[in-house]
Amino acid sequence: MWDRLLVDCRIATMEPMPGNPLGLIENAAVAIQDGRILRVGKRTELAGFRAKEVVALGGAWVTPGLVDCHTHLIFGGTRADEHAMRRAGATYEEIAKAGGGIASTVKATRAASDDQLLASAALRLDALLKGGVTTVEIKSGYALDVEGELRMLRCAAALAASEAVRIVPTLLALHALPPEYSDRREDYVTMIADELIPRAAREKLATSVDAFCEKIAFTTQEVERIFTAAQANGLPVRLHAEQLSNQNGAALAAKHKALSADHLEHLDDAGAKAMAKAGTVAVLLPGAFYSLQEKKKPPVELLRKHKVPVAIATDCNPGTSPMLSPTLAMNMACTLFGLTPEEALAGMTINAARALGLAHEVGSIAAGKAADLCVWRLESLAELGYWVGLPGPERRVYGGVEN
Amino acid sequence: MWDRLLVDCRIATMEPMPGNPLGLIENAAVAIQDGRILRVGKRTELAGFRAKEVVALGGAWVTPGLVDCHTHLIFGGTRADEHAMRRAGATYEEIAKAGGGIASTVKATRAASDDQLLASAALRLDALLKGGVTTVEIKSGYALDVEGELRMLRCAAALAASEAVRIVPTLLALHALPPEYSDRREDYVTMIADELIPRAAREKLATSVDAFCEKIAFTTQEVERIFTAAQANGLPVRLHAEQLSNQNGAALAAKHKALSADHLEHLDDAGAKAMAKAGTVAVLLPGAFYSLQEKKKPPVELLRKHKVPVAIATDCNPGTSPMLSPTLAMNMACTLFGLTPEEALAGMTINAARALGLAHEVGSIAAGKAADLCVWRLESLAELGYWVGLPGPERRVYGGVEN
Ligand SMILES: [Zn+2]
Ligand SMILES: [Zn+2]
Repeated sequence: MWDRLLVDCRIATMEPMPGNPLGLIENAAVAIQDGRILRVGKRTELAGFRAKEVVALGGAWVTPGLVDCHTHLIFGGTRADEHAMRRAGATYEEIAKAGGGIASTVKATRAASDDQLLASAALRLDALLKGGVTTVEIKSGYALDVEGELRMLRCAAALAASEAVRIVPTLLALHALPPEYSDRREDYVTMIADELIPRAAREKLATSVDAFCEKIAFTTQEVERIFTAAQANGLPVRLHAEQLSNQNGAALAAKHKALSADHLEHLDDAGAKAMAKAGTVAVLLPGAFYSLQEKKKPPVELLRKHKVPVAIATDCNPGTSPMLSPTLAMNMACTLFGLTPEEALAGMTINAARALGLAHEVGSIAAGKAADLCVWRLESLAELGYWVGLPGPERRVYGGVEN
Repeated sequence: MWDRLLVDCRIATMEPMPGNPLGLIENAAVAIQDGRILRVGKRTELAGFRAKEVVALGGAWVTPGLVDCHTHLIFGGTRADEHAMRRAGATYEEIAKAGGGIASTVKATRAASDDQLLASAALRLDALLKGGVTTVEIKSGYALDVEGELRMLRCAAALAASEAVRIVPTLLALHALPPEYSDRREDYVTMIADELIPRAAREKLATSVDAFCEKIAFTTQEVERIFTAAQANGLPVRLHAEQLSNQNGAALAAKHKALSADHLEHLDDAGAKAMAKAGTVAVLLPGAFYSLQEKKKPPVELLRKHKVPVAIATDCNPGTSPMLSPTLAMNMACTLFGLTPEEALAGMTINAARALGLAHEVGSIAAGKAADLCVWRLESLAELGYWVGLPGPERRVYGGVEN
């Protein structure tokens, strides 16, 4: 006797079958037991079993719950004023140099109480959940000191305890140089490598370590020190790479078997090849590209050619991508970057799970995985890439429970 | 004794006061009686009165309910497949010439039953309402024959009867030439002028008449015949103008005292001047600009210079703007067209009401107007232009009732 049986639906399992890359099943059913997927298949294959509750979905599409694998959801203040500055023509780099940008969020984040940080992040998280997110990554990176970064990660843990969503906490160890270290770069990197990373690892507050490799952020040498420290502490790495220029960050990430390299507008052939070889996922962030009104698109053809798995995320953050909608991220990936709707869906399900090292647990509908599902009142899956501002699924199931 | 009193809020009335163009009131209150706004002002100014229900809003922002003044919400099918074609590089004109574009929606709309048209439009309408819309314009224009166009307008009336939203029906009299008239343009225009417009007017199915003036649609001469017929039947006019090229449609619209001219990417100085003089509202449609990935932006500086009122709308339609979110339309107006958040808010409230000839009834918070309100859990109104994919207001009040 199963807990729940969902019937009268079409399922995109996202588990490739021969000639069927999305693993589509018509006239499908999925059985749920103890918050996990017990079986998925044709309705007829699941006949003969009984469930406490049978839910008929009226022909709707079922996909895995969406995985937003790159966000900076926890922060103080907003940067609505800068948004206006950028409309007046200021570049991201100009705003950063003028003391705006990340620095203003650092100030607001340090000044905010735990309750304030939690309450504002919960509002944004609620928007993502409405959009169908069942797993969300959250990075630290706006405190830029040891205690403050750990506090951000504890805040992520507190959200995880109170909200119906799986939260994956990332220590964004090198995001920006804090003002108090402006003439002591090396001391800052040393403190992060020798104090922050070991503490985050020991206290189990983060499952990976991230950095921002860019002219206005950190060099490959500085990033490599951090990556080495992360790996010494048993944590896999990720990297914000080639967003505004080509720093060969993707190759560095691949060298360290990074889970992902993110942004990648300026990725070159060597970087893509290295990522493919290392199994590093390319996380594309169309919300940042759109909000910054960038012109250079990430090299999607190159990623396809080298068979680099592509994920899509909101990059929800106060400065360069104040994006609250995962369905919009999929639409923008298609409209702005030329992905197919199928690639966009894989990008917010199975490939996003890979970018988090969680492909064994979420991202597809397969026996044994968490019962995280979205039920969409759509005629075709292509509509996930088509509608601009689709509110979200009709039903969202997290751990087998609708909410 | 009032019905309801909303307190503990900040209000953007959108009724300009000296030095206060949005009519902002801090520590505000609004009194509602019989679905209308009875009084609005400082909380202290409304003291001494009593209400059956007092609602404290915890410092939230209150704006007028959003007005989406340009949609094609009722249609058969979707065009998710074309979305993929455009990603592969096909232009709007190429798709139209290949028999896709409007023609495919005409086929699907003609084939759909009333129930099918209603059900699919209701799903899209629900998305707009979630986003804060309390007044929505809906155009006909996908049947392209007399009975079919009237059926579309009756479908809009049926939606109006069942949903908690004010629906403004527009006869889009010249949208595309139907295949059966491909070599009889003049006969088609004659039929529209002599049969369709008089019937829509007599049966009170539309409150204005619209047309699409463009190389791939109708000439200014053809549009002028339709405008003359509309005015002879007591209906004001609107026009899809200068979207893909400059056809001097805006000047023609102004000559006929049109309520609005819409799109306007290729508007020139003469057109803007004529619109200003005639009081014709410029309706900007960033969803179409975005979905078509156009390069030429509407001349916002020109509109400011000539003081043309600017409205923003979703243009929700299956081909060129499958946009379901009014808050996203505001963000895109800022991000893509460089409007300020204040202009974007005016564009979806008071100026959108003007574009519908309804500024006496909706679009601002003023005594006597309909009690259509949005309550936003935001720190600043600028956030309405800032967030990318904001789900919608915390509360939506239509005719004094929350839903
Ligand atoms: Zn980021
Ligand atoms: Zn239109």
